[in-house]
Amino acid sequence: MSTDHDEQARRERALTDRVLASFSGTEDDRLRELMCSLTEHLHAFIREVRLTQDEWAKAIGFLTAVGHITDDRRQEFILLSDVLGASMQTVTVNNEAVAGETEATVFGPFFVDDAPEVERGGDISGGARGQPCWVEGRVTDVAGRPVPGARIEVWEADDDGFYDVQYADGRVAARGHLHTDEHGGYRFWALTPTPYPIPHDGPVGGLLRATGRSPMRAAHLHFMVSAAGMRTLVTHIFVRGDDLLEQDAVFGVRDSLVEDFVEQPAGTPTPDGRDLGDRTWARARFDIVLAPGTP
Amino acid sequence: MSTDHDEQARRERALTDRVLASFSGTEDDRLRELMCSLTEHLHAFIREVRLTQDEWAKAIGFLTAVGHITDDRRQEFILLSDVLGASMQTVTVNNEAVAGETEATVFGPFFVDDAPEVERGGDISGGARGQPCWVEGRVTDVAGRPVPGARIEVWEADDDGFYDVQYADGRVAARGHLHTDEHGGYRFWALTPTPYPIPHDGPVGGLLRATGRSPMRAAHLHFMVSAAGMRTLVTHIFVRGDDLLEQDAVFGVRDSLVEDFVEQPAGTPTPDGRDLGDRTWARARFDIVLAPGTP
Ligand SMILES: [Cu+2]
Ligand SMILES: [Fe+3]
Ligand SMILES: [Fe+3]
Repeated sequence: MSTDHDEQARRERALTDRVLASFSGTEDDRLRELMCSLTEHLHAFIREVRLTQDEWAKAIGFLTAVGHITDDRRQEFILLSDVLGASMQTVTVNNEAVAGETEATVFGPFFVDDAPEVERGGDISGGARGQPCWVEGRVTDVAGRPVPGARIEVWEADDDGFYDVQYADGRVAARGHLHTDEHGGYRFWALTPTPYPIPHDGPVGGLLRATGRSPMRAAHLHFMVSAAGMRTLVTHIFVRGDDLLEQDAVFGVRDSLVEDFVEQPAGTPTPDGRDLGDRTWARARFDIVLAPGTP
Repeated sequence: MSTDHDEQARRERALTDRVLASFSGTEDDRLRELMCSLTEHLHAFIREVRLTQDEWAKAIGFLTAVGHITDDRRQEFILLSDVLGASMQTVTVNNEAVAGETEATVFGPFFVDDAPEVERGGDISGGARGQPCWVEGRVTDVAGRPVPGARIEVWEADDDGFYDVQYADGRVAARGHLHTDEHGGYRFWALTPTPYPIPHDGPVGGLLRATGRSPMRAAHLHFMVSAAGMRTLVTHIFVRGDDLLEQDAVFGVRDSLVEDFVEQPAGTPTPDGRDLGDRTWARARFDIVLAPGTP
């Protein structure tokens, strides 16, 4: 006895249509649009893979575990969105390509609002461990005109892969903000970025293991750049040559955001005359092009 | 400055492709298939609706709330799957149309494994309140041959819309099982089904309100029918004329499952001579056709 494929297809489509119709009384037009599109894609997924009852039950169990590990400090649903590329796809649709502007990437969970101001040429490391790294560049608009007074927020992990908010003692380190000069220029000391894992001791970590994926993020330095009349840019710079560029756990890497971090032998004179003794250091240049828009 | 649509589309597609590629190392072929299909549909949803960052954050908050209300007794993720028709679509793909077999519907959370056996013609109500209802029918295969000895599990809510497992005192009521006779026939006393709401004091209830939907389930009596060589059927019968047939909160209604429940005036002789005094009663017929398969 074999399947009546026409009747089966009719039943599946009829069910989806019934669910779509159930949202027809939604007052908020946008909510209706969201629910209808979600319904179409969710049902298409179930139909396409012929989801078994057992798989459905496992999915419910997985989401339940994600819910139960989530608390005020741990947001496993965001991790899940991240490792499915849903966070990055949301960033992508909200930062539409204009013409040569610097691409955006994920915001991440480690930004804090009140990072200290540093002077241009100052050091954001705040004593965090890592190789000193001189970062400089220019902020311009898409026509190449300098953007003076742009506010640049930067933040990064230390050499052990931890952000200051993960320290036990509450000290502020490896984050700060500064402003561009009249030519749009900026420069600061930071740390050469190093890779770190996303939290992988929960259900999302289990999913990464089951699918043979790494929990590591490619090494990066976070930027958020804002200026009047410009679309605020949330992005990273990545380190050319990093093995993890092709397998960033949250898909944050864009080719255009990968820059040379050039290591300097110990004793190499620094741009601002800072004496680093017998330490090596690195330097990177990151020119930033802001799209027009609102901060 | 307007969007570069080609470049934008290229970026969105490239991101999805990168996520798909990340699953290429998945050892379990089925898991890889599930994750890739999920990725395609999830990304298509985000791209189609142009999901805003704010909407993404609201979705994360909603799922977090669903996770936090879920515990050993309350399964809000299943409710969410139910009200999106995902549970019913899963049932649909797992019970493929053959040729005239009785359609399946959702299992629901109220089945228990060890419901008492009743004789044919016995009463499953167990003292639960409601209008007495005589239910009878025949179980056959798709060729019309009777299925003797089929096991029929039935369960339903009482007149107040509660299942026995929702009672405080742990008593068993309005559930039971029986077997078909040598002609595939069955008959029992139950209660005329009445509508009841799914739990709607949580985030899923909020979603129903925001979309103008009812939390009510159309009145129904649950059946699970199994026999050797037959696909186990999990289904309901619904009550013709119920206002809620078109708006069942979990999309469990199939036209083929709606039957006449014919109310009988007080004093009408009962099929088995039972004396119901001055009470009205109802009767319904539900002939069941099992698809071939395994129990
Ligand atoms: Cu889709
Ligand atoms: Fe980071
Ligand atoms: Fe029910």
